[in-house]
Amino acid sequence: MSKEATGAKRLAEGILQGGRRELAKLITRVENANPAARLALAELYPHTGRAHIVGVTGSPGCGKSTLVNEIVKQLRAAGETVGVVAVDPTSPFSGGALLGDRIRMRDLAGDAGVFIRSMASRGSLGGLARATADVVRLLDAAGFDFVLVETVGAGQAEVDIAKAAHTTIVVQAPGMGDDIQAIKAGILEIADIFVVNKADRPGAENTRKALEMMQRLGDGGNGQERHHSRPLGSGHEAAVELPPSAMRPPRPGWEVPILLTVGIEGVGTVEVIDAIRAHVAHLHDSGELQVREAARVEAELAMMLREALLADLLNKMPAEQIDVMLARVVAREIDPYTAVDHLVKAGVNGNESG
Amino acid sequence: MSKEATGAKRLAEGILQGGRRELAKLITRVENANPAARLALAELYPHTGRAHIVGVTGSPGCGKSTLVNEIVKQLRAAGETVGVVAVDPTSPFSGGALLGDRIRMRDLAGDAGVFIRSMASRGSLGGLARATADVVRLLDAAGFDFVLVETVGAGQAEVDIAKAAHTTIVVQAPGMGDDIQAIKAGILEIADIFVVNKADRPGAENTRKALEMMQRLGDGGNGQERHHSRPLGSGHEAAVELPPSAMRPPRPGWEVPILLTVGIEGVGTVEVIDAIRAHVAHLHDSGELQVREAARVEAELAMMLREALLADLLNKMPAEQIDVMLARVVAREIDPYTAVDHLVKAGVNGNESG
Repeated sequence: MSKEATGAKRLAEGILQGGRRELAKLITRVENANPAARLALAELYPHTGRAHIVGVTGSPGCGKSTLVNEIVKQLRAAGETVGVVAVDPTSPFSGGALLGDRIRMRDLAGDAGVFIRSMASRGSLGGLARATADVVRLLDAAGFDFVLVETVGAGQAEVDIAKAAHTTIVVQAPGMGDDIQAIKAGILEIADIFVVNKADRPGAENTRKALEMMQRLGDGGNGQERHHSRPLGSGHEAAVELPPSAMRPPRPGWEVPILLTVGIEGVGTVEVIDAIRAHVAHLHDSGELQVREAARVEAELAMMLREALLADLLNKMPAEQIDVMLARVVAREIDPYTAVDHLVKAGVNGNESG
Repeated sequence: MSKEATGAKRLAEGILQGGRRELAKLITRVENANPAARLALAELYPHTGRAHIVGVTGSPGCGKSTLVNEIVKQLRAAGETVGVVAVDPTSPFSGGALLGDRIRMRDLAGDAGVFIRSMASRGSLGGLARATADVVRLLDAAGFDFVLVETVGAGQAEVDIAKAAHTTIVVQAPGMGDDIQAIKAGILEIADIFVVNKADRPGAENTRKALEMMQRLGDGGNGQERHHSRPLGSGHEAAVELPPSAMRPPRPGWEVPILLTVGIEGVGTVEVIDAIRAHVAHLHDSGELQVREAARVEAELAMMLREALLADLLNKMPAEQIDVMLARVVAREIDPYTAVDHLVKAGVNGNESG
């Protein structure tokens, strides 16, 4: 066994035994795309699948972090352990250092039953989504009962990350500019639980009503054809699109609750916990947990496959060959579609010509 | 020549002759990932590279669309033709039909020198980014002097789309919740021009000052190591990350202006146009235009390569083989990293075993 593999094995064992320093160390390696991390992740994979993963998403300023903080406290009070991954794909500052709200989490520090990690973009969306999935898996393997994934913003990326959860909470706040703007953001199809936070502010009731109205429209409306495609497997045509959003099946037997909270005062958060537990029970009873797990694995594999295939191609091909092709496309001697065809073919036949 | 190729050629010719119906038709085919669209795109590629591409991004509710509308009017008044692509990756409703602001664009309808197209997510972020790039290229080939790409939100995806522009305008508005939240959103490194819109509202001066402060922090601070990696080419290690954000070089010789506007009244928009023209001149004079073009082509090729490689693999491999692998990962008999290795290897050696 190589030195690297031994180190990875030791880290993995440390994590399984509850070691927090090993956990932090491995997360950093995952973030840095350290090749040794892969070995440890593979080692830990059989130990995953036990945590319940809760995604929390919503626009900036809706009070997500405060709410997550409260959820963590309540779960801890009930004796559950909780891992938190705070994803901020848009922050150029690692760990969202500019935000005051991360600091609020500090009153949870020193509790071994809680582990909090902020992740910022490392330059690429695909990289962040993959790293987040890996960190969630690590926290799962480390034995946390719940893993909360908090994503800032309501862009497709954040939505996709949150959607890789078993239970997705979409947080809104009243008076954040245009309510319809916020509500339209593709959230209807991903929310298992709606929370109107800052509900002591004027307009909370309007936000709730707007959500209700949208729910009714959503039930009647269509556009459901998106639910049928799959990123891999038999539907090869649709495969290249990798639409995690397309895979979450409709939710039969689950009525999405709309809850009003004042996160900063802890008002209404008991009801959020109740709703999470009810959703956990629903997922188990209805068999939807298996469906979501399968969809999640499929989306992850598709994502990893693309990265691996590109890496494989680049390894096989001399850098000059790619640079020449780039220069020709820039000079408009060749169009990018034809260039990609050439590169794919050259990659496939690389061993022969090399 | 196949019937498909003949049709594509005819569409391309129609577009080069200024045909708007052909343009609209081809855009729809691009959106639907119609294979025939590729032929027309390849045909049109030598005719691209003349339009100046302006990205406009900012949080929902900052008045981007109104501002874009004003910019279009002013450019038209100066005799320039303008294509607009409004990208809304989060809207489940095609074309953002729920938004009133799209309707405002209607007073530009009937002017052949303007072409406006809304694009909504078709399920996948990669798909949207690629389709947007293609539509921008089409508008470029169609001969528009300026192509404006308006993106909703401040997520990484929207930022990446806007960043594929020659000139990127980041729009802020005062009083939108937490200013720092909005400002931190990775926008410093992408903005060529800052606009504080709705400047008649209280807090506009604070927003301007906050931006100025951030600019000063940004100049002094570092974290610039991200600028060195490339998605393709010689830096193979970093290649798999595909970070368009990582590639935009620092902007020597360009001081990012902060402009105050009231879009709805047209206040300050003349200064925005002046800033755009000044930036165009700067890009040409400094040689940065070529640098950005090259970076853009590289990012696009990397994106297209990943899609093409995955499609190639899936074509070569029986669907059952992938389904079996998925089931084994779900059952935790095999970890996803090893599964991806197997699939990549099976794909590479596909012809032998088949």
